[in-house]
Amino acid sequence: MSASPKLLTNLNVATMTDAPTPYGLMSDAAIALQDGLIKWVGKAEEIPENLQDAESVDLGGRLVTPGLIDCHTHLVHGGNRAAEFEMRLNGASYEEVARAGGGIISTVRATRSANADELLQSALRRADALIAEGVTTLEIKSGYGLDVDTELRMLRVAREVGNNRAIRVRTSFLGAHAIPADYKDRADAYIDQVCIPTLRQAHDEGLVDAVDGFCEGIAFSTDQIARVFEVARELGLPVKLHAEQLSNLGGAALAARHGALSADHLEYLDEDGVQAMADAGTVAVLLPGAFYTLRETQVPPVQSLREHGVPIALATDANPGSSPLTSLLLAMNMGCTLFRLTPEEALRAVTVHAARAMGLTDVGTIAPGQRAELAVWDVKQPSELAYRIGFNPLHTRIFGALT
Amino acid sequence: MSASPKLLTNLNVATMTDAPTPYGLMSDAAIALQDGLIKWVGKAEEIPENLQDAESVDLGGRLVTPGLIDCHTHLVHGGNRAAEFEMRLNGASYEEVARAGGGIISTVRATRSANADELLQSALRRADALIAEGVTTLEIKSGYGLDVDTELRMLRVAREVGNNRAIRVRTSFLGAHAIPADYKDRADAYIDQVCIPTLRQAHDEGLVDAVDGFCEGIAFSTDQIARVFEVARELGLPVKLHAEQLSNLGGAALAARHGALSADHLEYLDEDGVQAMADAGTVAVLLPGAFYTLRETQVPPVQSLREHGVPIALATDANPGSSPLTSLLLAMNMGCTLFRLTPEEALRAVTVHAARAMGLTDVGTIAPGQRAELAVWDVKQPSELAYRIGFNPLHTRIFGALT
Ligand SMILES: [Zn+2]
Ligand SMILES: [Zn+2]
Repeated sequence: MSASPKLLTNLNVATMTDAPTPYGLMSDAAIALQDGLIKWVGKAEEIPENLQDAESVDLGGRLVTPGLIDCHTHLVHGGNRAAEFEMRLNGASYEEVARAGGGIISTVRATRSANADELLQSALRRADALIAEGVTTLEIKSGYGLDVDTELRMLRVAREVGNNRAIRVRTSFLGAHAIPADYKDRADAYIDQVCIPTLRQAHDEGLVDAVDGFCEGIAFSTDQIARVFEVARELGLPVKLHAEQLSNLGGAALAARHGALSADHLEYLDEDGVQAMADAGTVAVLLPGAFYTLRETQVPPVQSLREHGVPIALATDANPGSSPLTSLLLAMNMGCTLFRLTPEEALRAVTVHAARAMGLTDVGTIAPGQRAELAVWDVKQPSELAYRIGFNPLHTRIFGALT
Repeated sequence: MSASPKLLTNLNVATMTDAPTPYGLMSDAAIALQDGLIKWVGKAEEIPENLQDAESVDLGGRLVTPGLIDCHTHLVHGGNRAAEFEMRLNGASYEEVARAGGGIISTVRATRSANADELLQSALRRADALIAEGVTTLEIKSGYGLDVDTELRMLRVAREVGNNRAIRVRTSFLGAHAIPADYKDRADAYIDQVCIPTLRQAHDEGLVDAVDGFCEGIAFSTDQIARVFEVARELGLPVKLHAEQLSNLGGAALAARHGALSADHLEYLDEDGVQAMADAGTVAVLLPGAFYTLRETQVPPVQSLREHGVPIALATDANPGSSPLTSLLLAMNMGCTLFRLTPEEALRAVTVHAARAMGLTDVGTIAPGQRAELAVWDVKQPSELAYRIGFNPLHTRIFGALT
């Protein structure tokens, strides 16, 4: 039996569909929700007769957008890197930081030594910061375990984040994130002996929604990533890749050849890579928090991505080292300020394009049949979402039912 | 009659005094509050006998810092500049933006046409964002009126922000902010006919705590600013100055010659300016939100400021054009990431040095006799405050009484 529909009235809506107006904007609109789905959206004066008596909520002229989607996070991890941040700013060299136990390996150590509840509690604090800004869908990666037990624990905790909060979580297996100390100079052995067997086991337990990797001189080669992607294909899992962040190894093109959902970072992406992504329909996920934190100066090729019609997403990359960022609104502002996206591109980047980067088609736009996951904002125009810095104008978040 | 003292226990405290430890850090500490003041701070095992029976609150090992101080804001203003932000990112030139009515003049127009309650309500939203991050002292400038009525209205509204929230507000008269359209090419006439008479009237009404100006090629010359500063001297008001943001006009040295509390922005400050500030004890207020938004590449001379012993403060510069930033924690992160301050310098910059930039000596440190204005944080170490981006670890803010 269906629940009664509910009606949101007196609102402006940015549907983020392909409607001819910017943002798919419709003023003086209304939205009907039923059974966790959007049943109808349109002009207030065109509300269908069968909805006109529905219980309604007046949104006071506020703006409604799709719930925001953070499609690239490392939200589950142990410890933090504040001490390393402080050491560096006090003039320590990378070598000194490494000798003091810093860098990604320190996060691996902290994550391995944290139990599931500790990982969950710290991840929930970060998830809550995102939820407070209207995020309704969240991707979380493994990749700080680099051993069977810890990778599985990270993925289970990621699932638990979704069980403990009104948010949809999708996991990515990122065993190919870094080479652990005991496999130093033996990346191939790590891939074969740890990464791939762990992926199979995690998949057996239903813990994996996608497979990710880090293709970089300091991490894994395209050949090594390709071996992981072959297993993903065998298991029927979609792939994505950290690519072209610090140099151009052709990772994005590799990902595109494997039909990847997304290639992420992309500061050093070249024209061939853009073309490969366009041909494959692979989303470009830009991560300005890492660009900002690393004081990178090479900007991703935004204009070329636009010209080739590659969909652009933005995400926090929330991680303890290169992007301790837990504000998707701030990622939008950084996308505009640092990468020169328009505010409309920035909002598409955290809604419809972020959904696509996660392989989801039932969120990211406001249209009949889509999930009833919405954000209601105390703003007059959608450009205000990217314009402000460190300000949260969220009024209400709707996840499924209107409560 | 004195109220009974109250005791905060089980905490670490960053006193930000000149104690020999970084941050004036003391672990396993306690703090006694009485009559709105800090009565005692020290190691838990050294609590004086007369305080041992005081009503106490266990802070669970959290970190206590002075309440944060935002010493440079334009919090009171009409409208916003999101449409202009969007226009620029869609490729409009500065000229096109100006023709469409953009730029500071659009904020002057919006501010002039807003009544006091509209200005107050929008300012309170921004103040609330700062308060939520532990800010207890706030500077607010006029400067978007540029006529008698609106400048006075802005200052009255700034006072009202302090009356409507548990926060201390200090005002700065910034009549010399920009040249209004009706005084185009007649900056001297504006200073003599509008700015100075308005300052005198605002002072008569008790609305002015300090006098500020904008010394820049696009605003006012050092001679014009000096005329305003002479009136400030006559009225017994301290001065401060927006200086060396876009070019080097010698504004900081001018300010220092007038014994200014602070010179602010300072990207183009030269060695002579640093020396003049050091000699006068003028605080350098750095505003990374504007640097970030304007994509400035010239960094303030932090190392030289350090070497000359010039105290460095950080502030949001919250304003609708060049810094729509309402997170002082983010200003701290930007101070570290963009200007290479250490996390300790960043915390001093929003506590003890920000207090000094406002001419206040009773806040900014945790010591007996200081006002009981504190922030309690869910962090283990003070470096975490600057390290994270878009995350608010505030647990409790204390303003006066412990409630
Ligand atoms: Zn990542
Ligand atoms: Zn300013």
